[in-house]
Amino acid sequence: MGATNKFPMPNLRIFCDSQFNAAALRLLEDGITPHELLVPQRRGDSVLSVAPSDSAIFQADIAFGQPSVETVLKAGRLRWLQITSAGFTRYDTPEFRAAAAARGLIVTNSSSVYAEACAEHVFAFMLAQARQLPLALKTRCAGGSAPWIELRNASGCLKGQQVVILGYGTIAARLVEMLAPFHMKITAMRRHPRGDEGVSTVTPEDLAGALSTADHVINILPDNPASARFVSKERLGQMKRGAIFYNIGRGTTVDQEALAESLQAGRLAAAWLDVTDPEPLPEDHPLWIAPHCFITPHTAGGHQNESGTLVRHFLDNLQRFVDGSPLCDRII
Amino acid sequence: MGATNKFPMPNLRIFCDSQFNAAALRLLEDGITPHELLVPQRRGDSVLSVAPSDSAIFQADIAFGQPSVETVLKAGRLRWLQITSAGFTRYDTPEFRAAAAARGLIVTNSSSVYAEACAEHVFAFMLAQARQLPLALKTRCAGGSAPWIELRNASGCLKGQQVVILGYGTIAARLVEMLAPFHMKITAMRRHPRGDEGVSTVTPEDLAGALSTADHVINILPDNPASARFVSKERLGQMKRGAIFYNIGRGTTVDQEALAESLQAGRLAAAWLDVTDPEPLPEDHPLWIAPHCFITPHTAGGHQNESGTLVRHFLDNLQRFVDGSPLCDRII
Repeated sequence: MGATNKFPMPNLRIFCDSQFNAAALRLLEDGITPHELLVPQRRGDSVLSVAPSDSAIFQADIAFGQPSVETVLKAGRLRWLQITSAGFTRYDTPEFRAAAAARGLIVTNSSSVYAEACAEHVFAFMLAQARQLPLALKTRCAGGSAPWIELRNASGCLKGQQVVILGYGTIAARLVEMLAPFHMKITAMRRHPRGDEGVSTVTPEDLAGALSTADHVINILPDNPASARFVSKERLGQMKRGAIFYNIGRGTTVDQEALAESLQAGRLAAAWLDVTDPEPLPEDHPLWIAPHCFITPHTAGGHQNESGTLVRHFLDNLQRFVDGSPLCDRII
Repeated sequence: MGATNKFPMPNLRIFCDSQFNAAALRLLEDGITPHELLVPQRRGDSVLSVAPSDSAIFQADIAFGQPSVETVLKAGRLRWLQITSAGFTRYDTPEFRAAAAARGLIVTNSSSVYAEACAEHVFAFMLAQARQLPLALKTRCAGGSAPWIELRNASGCLKGQQVVILGYGTIAARLVEMLAPFHMKITAMRRHPRGDEGVSTVTPEDLAGALSTADHVINILPDNPASARFVSKERLGQMKRGAIFYNIGRGTTVDQEALAESLQAGRLAAAWLDVTDPEPLPEDHPLWIAPHCFITPHTAGGHQNESGTLVRHFLDNLQRFVDGSPLCDRII
């Protein structure tokens, strides 16, 4: 953007509490010129979790990072908050929404930043399971041997199989694009289907039928009061014998004890989880020892130079904000 | 097909030396009616390797399986051989081709049977590497911790990256379809480009430039005199620093010692191999301990009920043979 007269509005004060690397920080500083950057005394530990409160935010017009709800509510000058995660649980309350609406505070998230990586991550889970990679990478055997025949027979193809996606947002839409060459039957569950999903949709009330025939059940639900333990013992029981369950949404949306039981009983063939509740799970949690349970430590959204992508996404929205255009990834 | 009058030609004798499961064998027996099935005293160990010789083949018009070259050359009645693998190294000699041409012997392989599974397998490799699954599945850490930040930064997205595919046949064509939603720059190396590949092509002579910018080099070369150690120390040296090498073709096409050195030196970021030479590699082979070297035991083509798919592919070709139509997967 530079120091030229691209911003007709008076200079803005932008507060950022994120722990970015030096290159991303420089990109941010350069990119917001001629606006002013306000930084806290101490930055957050991660772009996904709440940052320590800092009074600098009270001077800011815009905040970019993970300020606490209390701080945002007290920061009366704020006109726009962009959070650095896709999840926005702590802001997703009637009270916060009402307060934001009353003040005209816009809230955006960074879901576009994580959508590609998240969709590729769950797709990696699906293909790794289909091709039996965890077992195959450990197996040394000769062609024609019993373990070889068993492994080849246990391997499969995604092509033509059935998928249910729980929660249809940016990540699901990207995943649907990726699955197109596999000619799968895809059903997306959405509380309020719009008709523009490009795949068949069901509401939570009509989910049981779709679960009963799906080979793959992919959970991308965010954490909110309606999603708490949505994947319940009952819904796990509605899944087809031999189905595979994936979670890249939030751990709180699953009854994890019931999931471990389904795996122990051999009802589900496997579970691939990038999120759990809590993270990491305690050492003695049954999911650690459940058969065919594969867990990555909430790395689905991660990618090289994540800080850079977050900053570019913010700068893009900053330009829109200054221009008065609708912001990308608006949530409130 | 059944016993109705679908076959106007006299009954044929079909020799099959494959070790199929009972269901596939029944499918074969039912499917070839009213033709006659000839079976050997001892069947082959696997659908991918040469079967013991058996004199029953000398009575046959058609052979389906893995008979040895010597046996096929002596089986003067044979008009069509369908082999149960995609690879056909031992038949791919000037001598065999000349003998087959002189006799009017048609040879087909089963590459269509394995294409989907092979393409999904190498795609699983690509995504598992991009999302750092081998490390992520072993890592228990909290959000914001040093290993977590490192793992997220090491994770990547395939979208927009560059791919070189060595060998453009059925598997490569299917892989190209699968990669379409990832908007990658794909270059296929083919000895004689036809212009209908749908991606840019290079000949072996012009490969160096493509190798120098590719993030992913995918080897699908078959085993033949021209491909022996094609991925040489020199070509490995032409690959970009940090590139990832995949092999689902044949192990003989790679200088494995040079590959191990490239990984040891950190020039290549990773290698994912489904094939090696020999299989399995000896216990003391350097690839077993090379960093970021991931090996599956030649399971890329495997899938549930592989025998059934092989038999259906054969029956489909049998119908074409009887009808006088061109056969699918013809190689000679």
